[in-house]
Amino acid sequence: MDKLDFNIESLGNAKINSPMKNVQFINENAKVLFEPRLEIIKEKIAQGIEPEAFNIAGPREKIYFDPSKLRTGIVTCGGLCPGINDVIRAIVFSLYHHYGVRNIFGFQYGYEGLIPEFQHPVIELDPDFVEDLHEKGGTVLHSSRGPQNVVDMVDTLERMNIGILFTIGGDGTLRGARDIAEEVKKRGLKISVIGIPKTIDNDISFVQQSFGFETAISEAKTAIYGAHVEANGAKRGIGLVKLMGRHSGFIAANATLATSDVNFCLIPEVPFKMENLLKALEERFKRKNHAVIVVGEGAGQDLFDDNRQFDKSGNLIFHDIGTYLKNQINDYFNEKGEPVNIKYIDPSYIIRSVPANAHDSVLCLLLGHNAAHAGMAGYTNVLVGSWNRRYILVPIPAAVSKRKKINPEGSLWNSVLASTGQPVL
Amino acid sequence: MDKLDFNIESLGNAKINSPMKNVQFINENAKVLFEPRLEIIKEKIAQGIEPEAFNIAGPREKIYFDPSKLRTGIVTCGGLCPGINDVIRAIVFSLYHHYGVRNIFGFQYGYEGLIPEFQHPVIELDPDFVEDLHEKGGTVLHSSRGPQNVVDMVDTLERMNIGILFTIGGDGTLRGARDIAEEVKKRGLKISVIGIPKTIDNDISFVQQSFGFETAISEAKTAIYGAHVEANGAKRGIGLVKLMGRHSGFIAANATLATSDVNFCLIPEVPFKMENLLKALEERFKRKNHAVIVVGEGAGQDLFDDNRQFDKSGNLIFHDIGTYLKNQINDYFNEKGEPVNIKYIDPSYIIRSVPANAHDSVLCLLLGHNAAHAGMAGYTNVLVGSWNRRYILVPIPAAVSKRKKINPEGSLWNSVLASTGQPVL
Amino acid sequence: MDKLDFNIESLGNAKINSPMKNVQFINENAKVLFEPRLEIIKEKIAQGIEPEAFNIAGPREKIYFDPSKLRTGIVTCGGLCPGINDVIRAIVFSLYHHYGVRNIFGFQYGYEGLIPEFQHPVIELDPDFVEDLHEKGGTVLHSSRGPQNVVDMVDTLERMNIGILFTIGGDGTLRGARDIAEEVKKRGLKISVIGIPKTIDNDISFVQQSFGFETAISEAKTAIYGAHVEANGAKRGIGLVKLMGRHSGFIAANATLATSDVNFCLIPEVPFKMENLLKALEERFKRKNHAVIVVGEGAGQDLFDDNRQFDKSGNLIFHDIGTYLKNQINDYFNEKGEPVNIKYIDPSYIIRSVPANAHDSVLCLLLGHNAAHAGMAGYTNVLVGSWNRRYILVPIPAAVSKRKKINPEGSLWNSVLASTGQPVL
Amino acid sequence: MDKLDFNIESLGNAKINSPMKNVQFINENAKVLFEPRLEIIKEKIAQGIEPEAFNIAGPREKIYFDPSKLRTGIVTCGGLCPGINDVIRAIVFSLYHHYGVRNIFGFQYGYEGLIPEFQHPVIELDPDFVEDLHEKGGTVLHSSRGPQNVVDMVDTLERMNIGILFTIGGDGTLRGARDIAEEVKKRGLKISVIGIPKTIDNDISFVQQSFGFETAISEAKTAIYGAHVEANGAKRGIGLVKLMGRHSGFIAANATLATSDVNFCLIPEVPFKMENLLKALEERFKRKNHAVIVVGEGAGQDLFDDNRQFDKSGNLIFHDIGTYLKNQINDYFNEKGEPVNIKYIDPSYIIRSVPANAHDSVLCLLLGHNAAHAGMAGYTNVLVGSWNRRYILVPIPAAVSKRKKINPEGSLWNSVLASTGQPVL
Repeated sequence: MDKLDFNIESLGNAKINSPMKNVQFINENAKVLFEPRLEIIKEKIAQGIEPEAFNIAGPREKIYFDPSKLRTGIVTCGGLCPGINDVIRAIVFSLYHHYGVRNIFGFQYGYEGLIPEFQHPVIELDPDFVEDLHEKGGTVLHSSRGPQNVVDMVDTLERMNIGILFTIGGDGTLRGARDIAEEVKKRGLKISVIGIPKTIDNDISFVQQSFGFETAISEAKTAIYGAHVEANGAKRGIGLVKLMGRHSGFIAANATLATSDVNFCLIPEVPFKMENLLKALEERFKRKNHAVIVVGEGAGQDLFDDNRQFDKSGNLIFHDIGTYLKNQINDYFNEKGEPVNIKYIDPSYIIRSVPANAHDSVLCLLLGHNAAHAGMAGYTNVLVGSWNRRYILVPIPAAVSKRKKINPEGSLWNSVLASTGQPVL
Repeated sequence: MDKLDFNIESLGNAKINSPMKNVQFINENAKVLFEPRLEIIKEKIAQGIEPEAFNIAGPREKIYFDPSKLRTGIVTCGGLCPGINDVIRAIVFSLYHHYGVRNIFGFQYGYEGLIPEFQHPVIELDPDFVEDLHEKGGTVLHSSRGPQNVVDMVDTLERMNIGILFTIGGDGTLRGARDIAEEVKKRGLKISVIGIPKTIDNDISFVQQSFGFETAISEAKTAIYGAHVEANGAKRGIGLVKLMGRHSGFIAANATLATSDVNFCLIPEVPFKMENLLKALEERFKRKNHAVIVVGEGAGQDLFDDNRQFDKSGNLIFHDIGTYLKNQINDYFNEKGEPVNIKYIDPSYIIRSVPANAHDSVLCLLLGHNAAHAGMAGYTNVLVGSWNRRYILVPIPAAVSKRKKINPEGSLWNSVLASTGQPVL
Repeated sequence: MDKLDFNIESLGNAKINSPMKNVQFINENAKVLFEPRLEIIKEKIAQGIEPEAFNIAGPREKIYFDPSKLRTGIVTCGGLCPGINDVIRAIVFSLYHHYGVRNIFGFQYGYEGLIPEFQHPVIELDPDFVEDLHEKGGTVLHSSRGPQNVVDMVDTLERMNIGILFTIGGDGTLRGARDIAEEVKKRGLKISVIGIPKTIDNDISFVQQSFGFETAISEAKTAIYGAHVEANGAKRGIGLVKLMGRHSGFIAANATLATSDVNFCLIPEVPFKMENLLKALEERFKRKNHAVIVVGEGAGQDLFDDNRQFDKSGNLIFHDIGTYLKNQINDYFNEKGEPVNIKYIDPSYIIRSVPANAHDSVLCLLLGHNAAHAGMAGYTNVLVGSWNRRYILVPIPAAVSKRKKINPEGSLWNSVLASTGQPVL
Repeated sequence: MDKLDFNIESLGNAKINSPMKNVQFINENAKVLFEPRLEIIKEKIAQGIEPEAFNIAGPREKIYFDPSKLRTGIVTCGGLCPGINDVIRAIVFSLYHHYGVRNIFGFQYGYEGLIPEFQHPVIELDPDFVEDLHEKGGTVLHSSRGPQNVVDMVDTLERMNIGILFTIGGDGTLRGARDIAEEVKKRGLKISVIGIPKTIDNDISFVQQSFGFETAISEAKTAIYGAHVEANGAKRGIGLVKLMGRHSGFIAANATLATSDVNFCLIPEVPFKMENLLKALEERFKRKNHAVIVVGEGAGQDLFDDNRQFDKSGNLIFHDIGTYLKNQINDYFNEKGEPVNIKYIDPSYIIRSVPANAHDSVLCLLLGHNAAHAGMAGYTNVLVGSWNRRYILVPIPAAVSKRKKINPEGSLWNSVLASTGQPVL
């Protein structure tokens, strides 16, 4: 791995005293190590290499923007994820109550909301408007997929005199945020762009756990419970659950650990041969009368003849591995004259749309607060994340440089193998 | 409607004193009116017609079987439904604790369990075995679909010296129970056959509300909530939920009332034209940016070119109305150049497999107790149901004579129209 | 029982055509029998007695009020209960969408809202305001206890030119509604007063099941589960749960049936001797290592030396039977040198404040619709309820004539005894 | 802080090859830093101080015990906590499936189970017995409080020829485990003692988050929701919730962040003056009509005249701060003639007894696996915990040296203040 650059960018000197009271301000140089393994750190220091570390997020004693004159905007992009409304609410509460900012605008329907021709009116956000937002799934600002013209978006920000833009979204949204920040810089504007990473798949680099992920695991557990009960109810029953995870199998892996009912977990990072899976199922049916399979949506894409298509956001359209598995398994056992009873469950939309659970509510609250603190301090082109139980700031360009994936040699996948007892497929 | 015959059949004189203590025994002639409308009853009586009425279920002072010598069996058939385990548990508890019966056998995998060649061992059931059963979805006895040879099944009952057979299952299972009862009678055996109607669709006649139905509505509410949130999250979003209900739309209708988020409810009993639905959607998008559609799985089957297929149980295989609607709606709006954003949810297996909620737990408990009471009293070829808040006994032949359906002119459908505001489609 | 008078009162001839479309209107003479037992009805008719019956609720073809000029009000009184917000929402939706009424006022903080000196502003209610109300527990109109001056309240109605007043509340609230209706009549005004009975205890006569009751049972199940787990966790563990039910034990009885973990259920209608309970516990500990007790809050009040106090609403203040039982049981077993481990749980406020579950959401929706229909048709001094699966109208004076209680000789208590196996205490 | 000693103890050389397949073994020297702050680590290394670090847990390539001959025991002590059964199950599964251990005994009712005179039979544990255990709250092995004679306990272990003892319990239990380990060492026995820290309060040092804690927050959220709804329902309503936390306010603080409905959060670590709280409430009622207070059970103990009592385990018996606050607040506002409407909720037993949620299920699974790995490797007098997302081994003596508490100057309490907006009390 190349030396990672986690230095964060700022709009300039923060000279205004923060209006926050009763609070421990965070030193702007406080950092948390990227890698907390003792032997690795000692080795680096011995070699004279500064260990990589992230800036710790939090309220700063000096802020960049004058709250009384500041105008801010929030936009939500991409697919739904539990907790978006919590984040919006937390940003509004922090801007309003912690700093006294009175102009907070919600852009509707994702980046479209920044493009005049779509004619989506902005919403004025204040504590009354967001009061009960955390009890609702989805996003009150609505969303859309796909990039928009960066020049037009920055024109809008300039025209509206926006000082901080908060973008809540995934990989594509963060790339958009980076592009906006760069255009802003090119024009010499003083607009801070702060990302709050939203990925139910939990696949953004340097974001140890994204909001909504724990809630997704909870809901996935319900679906796997159903698959297990259904598999058990019938002779030679198979419960097959497709879970979210296009490039990374974090949901599938964690849901597998959370239920202990899963016999086969298939993820994008660990290729498998259909033949091996079928043989393993056959073996299992010699011992047991049922089986439960969990598959991440991006798993087994190499099993399809390639003919890749892309959606409006430029995201790859995935082949439907769930239906494929269902058909292959049915065909195989039908041909053998030993039919199985497959129940296929795709709970994705139910999972995405629930309100955040308690864990994610806390996470969203503190991400929102820290996003507000980061913006007020004048940082830009950064996202807020958490790392080893500290909230941190990460340069967006670093975070979008590559996807976070499960390490097939690491402890998470190790635990999945230990829990399922599945063979190498 | 022909005069309905609700007279129940019995194996003979019940002469043994019930061992139950501290209990109000039910008079065997106590009846509850089929039709509780005053004007109808007065009219019938004025005309000298005895109003139809059901025997009230409950413990009888005299019982037919000697508990110390009685051997009993329980079988569960067909698809899963919340509460099956509760019913098994309640029967076992009542037989064991109320009557002192010590031989209770569970036949596994539905009627297959009564056929020697399948070699499914019987399970001995007692209070310890069933203690925590109500906390689990599914059926601990497993299930299978389809009828089995009646002669073989009665041979098994005779060979095992079973006195009461409890069958938990739907329409097909009840027909099987009726056939067993008739074969038993032909042979002059003294075997009581008691049905506990299981239909998540709530479509068995003279069973006002089947167990698992309320739980299903609760779970369906979660799916519809998701559909609503997803529809709202996107531009021109449509949330489409397919719910169970092959012949009857009770789940779709009640879930619609339970959520208040549904704009169009489609059920088997009320045909619709695709053209009208598309127009109505178009109208809605002029006023609102999203729509929620709930469709019962048996709705709109006339929209398909007919080519009906049947499964092993002889049940019609239904065309997939959910996918059909999704495609038709997408095509229509794409052609118009005004694409919509459909999220299609099929939560069926998740709904079927959850444990019973509090309402259904009570229902299952009392159905199980009353099934035990009915069997001990020597009734046969009857099912236990509830009617206007009394538990009743219904002759199985009457119950399977036709499906229960929603009356398109009645108050339930009326309420659905009033709640959705949907036009005639 | 005296002959019951269920004739409903109306303000006068309903002459205006209902604006409702696509709807089956209910004949104003349609009635459902109070008593659905065949033998009882036959006997009555044979004796020339008209069987008691309730008017069936629902939309009428002719209505009394002109929607375009009508002004209406809603008030919520007494303790919280799941579903109040659902009822408010359903009334507003029905008045607005079914009839086109545009003036709907919410009086705040119960009957106080009708008394000028409290200065509680009225809230204007419309579909936007109530849109998401069903997702929230409590009452958006807030509540208060206790009666207010009837003359002052009718002055307010007259001054505001209110045509229909909807009162959502329990026994005391209904008495207030009756008094308002009588004062209105005395003054010759044309104001309809419609009650929607709210009683989490389910103890209002001729209201077969009140809204919120099923939700309460669901939540009580969670508390009893906890009591069972705690009792089981320790040596000689006792889980003791106090549930709502001042005069009637419906919640305690139904929650007992819903969980099957309860060993002793104590309700107000069935007195018990402390000595017997202690002996029965002692007996149980010879066989088992734990016990679960559920007690309705009004149970065992005769065990206290009397010194009754009343609250502001004139309701009796109950002695705390939960703490009393806890102390008595601890003392008894401590004295014997065989201490027990009691965990006492009082979940009342948690239960009361949750949103309605799916069952109650349907009930609230249809109660609200039918309340609106009843008011529009010009009925007054009536409440909406349900009876044997029909929605009905009941004269308020009949409903408040006495409390509904569990019959210790009836099937519900019978089932509780059969489920717990508890001896006569 | 003194230099912490995190060196772990072992029974001797592990020479046997692990039977685990397909697994990445953990190097026994792999360590994770106690403190991940860059500047602190650099400073230490510059001063020639070795930074404190924990051994990383996980399967070792060489194990100490021969699985085919090994006999193991599990004991659960102290109060209930969500997830105990999950931990038991995970240990059994790992010992059985990962290592082939066939003798696993459950000691019942805590340390009493190791004392002959209590005559609690041991339970033989195997995968069938523990299969569905994770679906149940509580502990299948039951529990008790208080220490037992160490000599007697080690006699039992010796007599039964136990090689590994797993103790699941809190601070007192860990002290007991340490004492057992020391007695074992004194006798020169080869018995490994492995602790799995159980503390719903999350107050054990070097255990970053204990199992059951997240579940507790989820359930506490429900209670606070109820308090908020009740407070809102009445005039001048106050919802008061007492949450667990004798020495540490982690539950109160996190539940406050999870709900955003709390106006005052009171914890043991931050003393408050009653007078200030009453004034602050008074101020709030000038602006709002309701307030929500959350109090940890150990908060405000200095407000009571001291007269401390201790329970059987030697734990301090706490004064009931909830009831105290309720009375003080009532008295204060009654005296002022401005009465408030307090609803007091104590949900502790409901919270403790629920099954683990998805998050805690994963945590319990991996704690159980790692406990088995640690025991098999021959470590002793250690507990398994997690630290910055790695599973670690901590010497029990270090962990019980002092309680973990919230730092009133740290980021958690900072966030609570920022979320509630409460003044210094």
